[in-house]
Amino acid sequence: MSAMRAMPECIVCAYRQALNTTRIVTDDEATQLGVLSRVAQSLQNASLDQTPAALSQPVYAIVSEVTGVPDPYVQAKAETNRQAMALLPKLEALVRSSDDPLHAALRLAVAGNIIDLGIGHAFDLERDVAALMLQPFAVDDYPAFRAALRPGCRILYLGDNAGEIVFDRVLVELLVEAGAEVIFTVKSGPIINDATMEDARFCGLTNLVHVICTGSNDIGVNWAHVSDEFLRHYKNADLIIGKGHGNFETCTGQPGRFFFLLKAKCPVVADKLGVPLGATALRHENNL
Amino acid sequence: MSAMRAMPECIVCAYRQALNTTRIVTDDEATQLGVLSRVAQSLQNASLDQTPAALSQPVYAIVSEVTGVPDPYVQAKAETNRQAMALLPKLEALVRSSDDPLHAALRLAVAGNIIDLGIGHAFDLERDVAALMLQPFAVDDYPAFRAALRPGCRILYLGDNAGEIVFDRVLVELLVEAGAEVIFTVKSGPIINDATMEDARFCGLTNLVHVICTGSNDIGVNWAHVSDEFLRHYKNADLIIGKGHGNFETCTGQPGRFFFLLKAKCPVVADKLGVPLGATALRHENNL
Repeated sequence: MSAMRAMPECIVCAYRQALNTTRIVTDDEATQLGVLSRVAQSLQNASLDQTPAALSQPVYAIVSEVTGVPDPYVQAKAETNRQAMALLPKLEALVRSSDDPLHAALRLAVAGNIIDLGIGHAFDLERDVAALMLQPFAVDDYPAFRAALRPGCRILYLGDNAGEIVFDRVLVELLVEAGAEVIFTVKSGPIINDATMEDARFCGLTNLVHVICTGSNDIGVNWAHVSDEFLRHYKNADLIIGKGHGNFETCTGQPGRFFFLLKAKCPVVADKLGVPLGATALRHENNL
Repeated sequence: MSAMRAMPECIVCAYRQALNTTRIVTDDEATQLGVLSRVAQSLQNASLDQTPAALSQPVYAIVSEVTGVPDPYVQAKAETNRQAMALLPKLEALVRSSDDPLHAALRLAVAGNIIDLGIGHAFDLERDVAALMLQPFAVDDYPAFRAALRPGCRILYLGDNAGEIVFDRVLVELLVEAGAEVIFTVKSGPIINDATMEDARFCGLTNLVHVICTGSNDIGVNWAHVSDEFLRHYKNADLIIGKGHGNFETCTGQPGRFFFLLKAKCPVVADKLGVPLGATALRHENNL
């Protein structure tokens, strides 16, 4: 698999992301316009020879700079963490009573990937997660995953969003019980609603496994700015679980044995995965 | 009613329109990127103190300049004209056999407003138009329209898209039969898939009523560039029917007695009309 390239619609999407994020912190039209103008300057000479994640990355720095708000999603992150934690006992019981708890946990983890920018009510989260858990993976490399999961195997688990990591936690617990040694990653600082160390602590991940930072607050993994600790665990990993768009976009084509676990939320990622828009996937990519 | 102002999302939408239109004429990514870059230069200092139509207008000139294609929608226009003409006998019969043919013709005319940028198959057009004709107007100022329609009254009918004008034709026929003197307007040159004189001729409008050009190939009515002929008929009109987004965006708040007939296809126009997204409206606006 080759590295992922951005498509022209990623540029249009970047403007949309800029406006959506600005609106979270202010209703002021002049500020919104100011952000879009700065984004236009920044993207005017944008190259498609980069990942969609890298293309949209500067947008978030611009929003923070223009609005003076370093972490626009801080409240949304806390809220989704709380909502997901309230659902945890019920979802954990659902997974553990399944015929195949590991596969159920994988489906729950991908269902948690619906927690992206839009924040709904607890009830909606509950309903949507339950519905998505029933949806079969469009790509389901479960047999390969199952085979790779051996006692003592070292798993680098690339986490995605706040709230979503509560659902990952159920899967992580099963992986630990299966004898795997799991390292869970969060971002080094705020970017969109991605989970940081604070979120991992709130959601109980830090009590369960070793949680490390990627080395930067970039979307997915910015290979030019990973920490030594991240690099060491990446090189030692027998398998790497990559959650969500950002990790897929930045890790596909990289050396390693990856299992990407995500919902295809846009046509560009759906196309690269080879699945319909809105489909979920557990995709094995062995680049060893 | 005040004149319509653009919203920040109109800027995002302009980039989307630019990419969609470029894709109609070329798959070449470098060209698509080149268009988006030129749009970024153009919109970098865009003001919201203009209509959405005026804001997106330069996008189409950029697409034509960069791609070298003056009329990207030329084939789509011909195709929708043909499809709509094939449906005409059936739709005309449907209208004339209704309890209230005039109201049915108004609903048919607004149903024709679904012919925008996306071109479907004849069957889809038939099905969608039939479905939309059954949908009640969210704003229905039919009593006022009925009262205004007197023998000898002068109606300026601001046409919208190619294909759509075939559906307008059924309404125009009923207006003429009711004794009105109808002047129908088309654009002076190609802009998006808006009807031009060639389309009016193909669809039989020119045999039915006097068809004139607005004076420019601007979206809706560009009041700074209307022809003398347009201005004369505008000033003489007892009532003005404005079809679609562009005419609503550029005419709301202008002097005159307007009946806007459209489907609200975006949140900005839906908000200004005070109707839900996707709703249809026959809205009376008397600015005399």
